[in-house]
Amino acid sequence: MTARSSLTVVLAAGEGTRMRSAIPKVLHPVAGQSLLAHVLSAAPDGAGASLAVVVGPDHEAVALEARRARGDAVTFVQRERLGTAHAVLAARDAIARGADDLLVAFGDTPLISAETFARLRAPLKNGAALAVLGFRAADPTGYGRLVVEGDQLVAIREQADASAEERKITLCNAGVMAFDGRRALEIIEKIGNANSKREYYLTDAVTIVRSLGLEAVVIETSEDEVRGINTKTQLAEAEQVMQTRLRKAALEAGVTIIAPETVYLAADTTFGRDVTIEPFVVIGRGVSIADGAVIHSFSHIVQASIGKNASIGPYARLRPGTSLGEGVRIGNFVETKAVELEAGVKVNHLSYIGDTHIGANANIGAGTITCNYDGISKHKTEIGAGAFVGTNSSLVAPVKIGRGAYIGSGSVITRDVPDDALAVERNQQNNREGGAKRYRELKTRNKKPKGG
Amino acid sequence: MTARSSLTVVLAAGEGTRMRSAIPKVLHPVAGQSLLAHVLSAAPDGAGASLAVVVGPDHEAVALEARRARGDAVTFVQRERLGTAHAVLAARDAIARGADDLLVAFGDTPLISAETFARLRAPLKNGAALAVLGFRAADPTGYGRLVVEGDQLVAIREQADASAEERKITLCNAGVMAFDGRRALEIIEKIGNANSKREYYLTDAVTIVRSLGLEAVVIETSEDEVRGINTKTQLAEAEQVMQTRLRKAALEAGVTIIAPETVYLAADTTFGRDVTIEPFVVIGRGVSIADGAVIHSFSHIVQASIGKNASIGPYARLRPGTSLGEGVRIGNFVETKAVELEAGVKVNHLSYIGDTHIGANANIGAGTITCNYDGISKHKTEIGAGAFVGTNSSLVAPVKIGRGAYIGSGSVITRDVPDDALAVERNQQNNREGGAKRYRELKTRNKKPKGG
Amino acid sequence: MTARSSLTVVLAAGEGTRMRSAIPKVLHPVAGQSLLAHVLSAAPDGAGASLAVVVGPDHEAVALEARRARGDAVTFVQRERLGTAHAVLAARDAIARGADDLLVAFGDTPLISAETFARLRAPLKNGAALAVLGFRAADPTGYGRLVVEGDQLVAIREQADASAEERKITLCNAGVMAFDGRRALEIIEKIGNANSKREYYLTDAVTIVRSLGLEAVVIETSEDEVRGINTKTQLAEAEQVMQTRLRKAALEAGVTIIAPETVYLAADTTFGRDVTIEPFVVIGRGVSIADGAVIHSFSHIVQASIGKNASIGPYARLRPGTSLGEGVRIGNFVETKAVELEAGVKVNHLSYIGDTHIGANANIGAGTITCNYDGISKHKTEIGAGAFVGTNSSLVAPVKIGRGAYIGSGSVITRDVPDDALAVERNQQNNREGGAKRYRELKTRNKKPKGG
Repeated sequence: MTARSSLTVVLAAGEGTRMRSAIPKVLHPVAGQSLLAHVLSAAPDGAGASLAVVVGPDHEAVALEARRARGDAVTFVQRERLGTAHAVLAARDAIARGADDLLVAFGDTPLISAETFARLRAPLKNGAALAVLGFRAADPTGYGRLVVEGDQLVAIREQADASAEERKITLCNAGVMAFDGRRALEIIEKIGNANSKREYYLTDAVTIVRSLGLEAVVIETSEDEVRGINTKTQLAEAEQVMQTRLRKAALEAGVTIIAPETVYLAADTTFGRDVTIEPFVVIGRGVSIADGAVIHSFSHIVQASIGKNASIGPYARLRPGTSLGEGVRIGNFVETKAVELEAGVKVNHLSYIGDTHIGANANIGAGTITCNYDGISKHKTEIGAGAFVGTNSSLVAPVKIGRGAYIGSGSVITRDVPDDALAVERNQQNNREGGAKRYRELKTRNKKPKGG
Repeated sequence: MTARSSLTVVLAAGEGTRMRSAIPKVLHPVAGQSLLAHVLSAAPDGAGASLAVVVGPDHEAVALEARRARGDAVTFVQRERLGTAHAVLAARDAIARGADDLLVAFGDTPLISAETFARLRAPLKNGAALAVLGFRAADPTGYGRLVVEGDQLVAIREQADASAEERKITLCNAGVMAFDGRRALEIIEKIGNANSKREYYLTDAVTIVRSLGLEAVVIETSEDEVRGINTKTQLAEAEQVMQTRLRKAALEAGVTIIAPETVYLAADTTFGRDVTIEPFVVIGRGVSIADGAVIHSFSHIVQASIGKNASIGPYARLRPGTSLGEGVRIGNFVETKAVELEAGVKVNHLSYIGDTHIGANANIGAGTITCNYDGISKHKTEIGAGAFVGTNSSLVAPVKIGRGAYIGSGSVITRDVPDDALAVERNQQNNREGGAKRYRELKTRNKKPKGG
Repeated sequence: MTARSSLTVVLAAGEGTRMRSAIPKVLHPVAGQSLLAHVLSAAPDGAGASLAVVVGPDHEAVALEARRARGDAVTFVQRERLGTAHAVLAARDAIARGADDLLVAFGDTPLISAETFARLRAPLKNGAALAVLGFRAADPTGYGRLVVEGDQLVAIREQADASAEERKITLCNAGVMAFDGRRALEIIEKIGNANSKREYYLTDAVTIVRSLGLEAVVIETSEDEVRGINTKTQLAEAEQVMQTRLRKAALEAGVTIIAPETVYLAADTTFGRDVTIEPFVVIGRGVSIADGAVIHSFSHIVQASIGKNASIGPYARLRPGTSLGEGVRIGNFVETKAVELEAGVKVNHLSYIGDTHIGANANIGAGTITCNYDGISKHKTEIGAGAFVGTNSSLVAPVKIGRGAYIGSGSVITRDVPDDALAVERNQQNNREGGAKRYRELKTRNKKPKGG
């Protein structure tokens, strides 16, 4: 545990035109959350850590997302886009408060980890004024090269300015930097714009640090971790990297995943012991799966808590607010939303259960639908323990089915049913002898459709 | 734009026994259309372009598919299978008409592009009598090698006839050729069958062209583009190549595809701006998706038009003739067929809507089914704007639900409902106190099934 | 056909702690059956073949699975875990019976084939006392190396004991061995535990065989075939290898699989001619698919027989006991269980059909549910040939619908319906003019939910 305070400045003002989207680049999602939120969750957190996010002038949605993802985020607007150093200085007020470490990160590198930020800060404790994150590029063409002498970083050389010898360097600049917080403002303010584009580049900080007789060093990480997202193809690639990480972690924790490449997880999915996931499953944010539960194929689960030894799917859709007790069975073509199902409840087929509480061991027949919406408002349904709801029933909320009650098939239940009562809404079955034959004859004569 | 006329002869008479199928080889599908149709769509089209397809004697289905895919296709039957040159001559009547360029292509290479046909024709303008399509084979074993001297093609050497030196050549014959149309018939008719199989090989054209003092050249393309399909494994590989192309194009156009390798597209799928497609989606032919629409996981869509900001699925099946307006929501376990849903309509759960028109902002409850088939004929359903259809309703077509009408849950609607009317088909709910208890006791006593 | 008798001893006593599971390692599934069952099905079978399975002291479930998978399996308990040779000797009573060949295999290598066992036994016929299965490792680090001189195996050298030269050997020990049955016990009993862990290692058999002046040889196989499963990651990798095998075999047999990497098969799936499988299909054990059948996307099929030219899905779930005749159509969001559907039956949408027989050409409307469970027992439904069941019907079993009968939409059918009869359970539709408008006004006034 470090006693040093930190400020992380996350640059998120880019327009992202190559995404071909009306949505600001850093708001695009990977593994169910925005690029920006990924970076913000990896940034230093807790006591002594502060966070500044620099957004574009027209990007209030980015500022909102920053504050949603990290309640402590302070946002700054970069009014003109004049380069990375200029963007960092948009947060001058925060930097001037003088945290021990100043980190600069990018809102479009969602794969960076908290551990990498920690490693990048380490040299500052040992007296370096600047630590730059580097990676070994499979193909370095186009990246800034990190020119190193001994253990010192002497320059970041852009592709265009690099000598033939320097172009052979495979150690490249990831952009992310950590400054000694006491010197950071002084260093960054010295950066000029004497270049063809008249922009202020943060990479110039290396030369300035050295001209001040201070130390600059490199911390290496993997290329995957610092992928920047500029196109929809790169967005898909980042999703792939993220999913590979999540699947690997789940397998190592002992989850049985029959075909990992067909299972989509979220960063916050939690698993008990002996959980099994079949092929073709999508799990969104906020899902916990307890010991022994089985998620069958073609299930889609978001914000749901799944109890011990529960069996889900195939073709189950658990929507937000689903809480399932031990041994609950949710079968095929079943949708749940905002429900609490106690232990042993079965909803095996073709049902929609929403805004409902169901007591233990109740059995909900195929085709049962809770009519939770009357066209104006949503209402709740309560089903008692041990109740049996017959097939194709409609439970018109608000309504309460008592403990041990029995609902006859095909009933529309609009009034509460007492405990242990048998409720039926139905007419007499009328069998007309020969009626089908006559009907077929009639329909065949009138084969032309009558209406519209 | 070339002023030259063209005839493309597509050879599609092969039996394809290695497909182990009763269906002619070129009728097998890739990305939702037959191998033959892919080749025919890539072949030169428009003014001055004509098309001949050579089919086997027993393959009327192939001729039909050729005419379906390209209305201008003329078909010829190759009565005996005596080699590629013999097959081309089955279309002698078309060739004799003397287009400027004669192209020979194969019905089992679905990945060839229009651009490649154009590139292959270019040398003819510059005086070549023959241009042969070649590719660099990763493993050339078994392919005919293209023997080149300077910029001239001097021979196509079959594997069996090649010297050790020639076998090192990796430039291979793709089979596809372009002839100077004025000389084509003369050249091809000179091809003999003095070989072990007594067949007429089109590859002999190279030697003949040169013996006439004319020029033959090679145009290169990628190996992927000229894959021939002979087995079900190769068919699956071609699908993979095609899908990779389609996914790449969609990503580059700005579509957000979370897991591209799990999304199947068709060649004619069109996308607006800021469309999102979640994992596990199958899109067949004839689908257009407007700006801002989201296709959720496990959706299956064929011949459907999806409006702006619509939300589809998860588990939505849109069948042919589905037309959805702006902001329409189709939820889980919902099937549509031959429907027009105006802006803002919601069909959120467990419904089948077929042969139906629904006015703006109507809300269709869970479990609603349009009974469009009476056992004899199909009929239409009309639902007015702003109507509310309660859950588990059956709408027995032909029937018309008025604007703003309200259908009570569980109703079977057989008569038209006026605008703003409330329609209910239901009985009194009967709660028998203690009835469930008595029922359980009775059933438990009689536990043996009574019938069936 | 060999006349030699055999005993295969399968070692299945490992704890498998790296699986992080309460379930014994060899009971984890690959392609729908346990690792152990895979090995037992590959082991020699039939006349003269016997089988012994060595299980851990606390693993009665493993013994049960062994006997379930192979009725002839005899199980032995290894009370302490003192090494592989010690484990083999737990089956001493079986070995002492003196089969011609003694095979030692491992319960956690599910990919081994019957052909490999046969190849391993071959040298015994030619006088070798021991044949050891080897493989060329991509990375041999950590494996025991097979030291070979001429055609003789002279030692198995563990990584720790290997010289620098020996570590370059890529031929590694797969663990599986075949002994001359007349000498096996003598050889194995000579194995000592003079090593750091004080365990009895079967690999020491090589030195003993040679010290007795007998021959030891190596039989090579692929690394894939002898993968041992120790972690959930390795379990997933084995599934991948197995599925790749199954898909390849199906394609080679002529099945059209549009996207093979998205189709999961079982080892016993059988296919007719011209079967098509669309993307995203899961097929479990016990499935046969006849000529011309099409399995559409998102289908899930276990223990089902699918007739000629049947059409299944998309989104069809066929559960155990499903038998479908020629031309049957099972559409979307349909579940079947323990049903026999005769030729031409259609169940196109949103239905659950369980414990039911349906005669030829019957048409089952959307939303039809067989109420096969009354809360206490399961009952059967019988639907006659040519019957038409209207949408949203509930058939309360036990019940019989006659041939050619017609069930009106939304009916709850509790009594048998005669042949050609028209059965309806329904009330009058009541249209209240202006009722929807009044209802909306009322509900909007009372917008707060009243209950629940």
